[in-house]
Amino acid sequence: MNPRVVNTAAALLIGNELLSGKVADQNLVELAKTLRALGIRLTRVVMLPDDLPALSAELRALSASFDVVLTSGGVGPTHDDVTIDAVADAFGTHVIEHPLLLGLLDRLYGDKLTEAHRRMARVPHGSELCGAPDVEWPTTVMRNVWVLPGVPDLFRFKLLTLRAGLSGAEPFVSRALYLRVDEPDLKPVLDAVVARHPQVEIGSYPKWFEPSYRTKITLDARQAALADAAFEDLKSQFVSAQIFREE
Amino acid sequence: MNPRVVNTAAALLIGNELLSGKVADQNLVELAKTLRALGIRLTRVVMLPDDLPALSAELRALSASFDVVLTSGGVGPTHDDVTIDAVADAFGTHVIEHPLLLGLLDRLYGDKLTEAHRRMARVPHGSELCGAPDVEWPTTVMRNVWVLPGVPDLFRFKLLTLRAGLSGAEPFVSRALYLRVDEPDLKPVLDAVVARHPQVEIGSYPKWFEPSYRTKITLDARQAALADAAFEDLKSQFVSAQIFREE
Repeated sequence: MNPRVVNTAAALLIGNELLSGKVADQNLVELAKTLRALGIRLTRVVMLPDDLPALSAELRALSASFDVVLTSGGVGPTHDDVTIDAVADAFGTHVIEHPLLLGLLDRLYGDKLTEAHRRMARVPHGSELCGAPDVEWPTTVMRNVWVLPGVPDLFRFKLLTLRAGLSGAEPFVSRALYLRVDEPDLKPVLDAVVARHPQVEIGSYPKWFEPSYRTKITLDARQAALADAAFEDLKSQFVSAQIFREE
Repeated sequence: MNPRVVNTAAALLIGNELLSGKVADQNLVELAKTLRALGIRLTRVVMLPDDLPALSAELRALSASFDVVLTSGGVGPTHDDVTIDAVADAFGTHVIEHPLLLGLLDRLYGDKLTEAHRRMARVPHGSELCGAPDVEWPTTVMRNVWVLPGVPDLFRFKLLTLRAGLSGAEPFVSRALYLRVDEPDLKPVLDAVVARHPQVEIGSYPKWFEPSYRTKITLDARQAALADAAFEDLKSQFVSAQIFREE
């Protein structure tokens, strides 16, 4: 399919193990970087346990509010894998076995194909499949919901299908200035720069346990000229001894 | 204050840098482990940018639905730190400077205290402060919302105030069995064990890139006897060569 142009995204991270602290999520930051590089704004992330009604309600809400929704987790063959059913339920439809996925499974397992293996072919009725070069298993896409696996290595691999299937309207341009100045001390200067550049998103991040600098200022815009102007304005407020690094 | 006994928790992770992929969240897994150890069930996590109206609406919803809400991030002195204002807004109140926090700042900065420093004394009107031994700066608690910092080292430190101020009704008991069996192959056995132990939360986690075992099964309950019975039932379904490790 042709890349869909979208502006806003939400993510739904699924799994009891994330909420119990048994496993630290590794997928969100990779997803966030991928969307950022595509020029798509990730605006909301929700993490929920393997609970079908809660997932279905959340998916319905996110799908209605954002251009695209990415899920991670809950797509294996066991009783605690309920994401496919939740997506189907959210759109008021049922689950089918996709012929193309059954064909892939048949090639993988042949005579050894079991009922448990067949569960990997289950998709919500009406889903599309989105592939990419070098990705053996396509991604299930139901309306604006992309269903990705929870296993981090597989998740990262499947991000290639996102890069093939989604595109943002405009890229983000990011600059950064690392200062040897404590955050409270640079606040008046920073407030003035923020006020002069309303189209630039400016962030301030103190570094508490870092010897080389004290505060990192980030400047993000949809156009390079805007980010650059705010960056130069900010930089001109400091002497070179106060500046540790620029990006 | 005496520890509050609570059952359910939600977390709100705050910061543009998390959603743009510039920074990977490190706080959630530490929070989840701490709540788990206290016997408190973390049921929902939301991640949002530094956007006051969005944060206020979310805080109002989470505070009404869960016994306790933990926030992370957005509590510094700069323009992008809006968490305190969002909490105040969520409860329909205003922000004050807390005399005890002003006193701490005075002792820290003395003559060098600036307006930017004073912002660290801002709390929603009606807040309590929760301290703990060895924690120099207490945690702001507004009704059932605990406001924690985003900087990971400080966040981890502040978890001590949670341990001092919150307590769950019953602890969780966790067992685990690591099997040299592929997840699809053990599904029929697992389904039967799940059906026989409805009070035990059973999770199945395939390991794709690990030579020593193929699937980890977790068993969680509020009582040791329940978790142990399900564990022994599951274990009895396999021969010892199939079992890599137990916990």
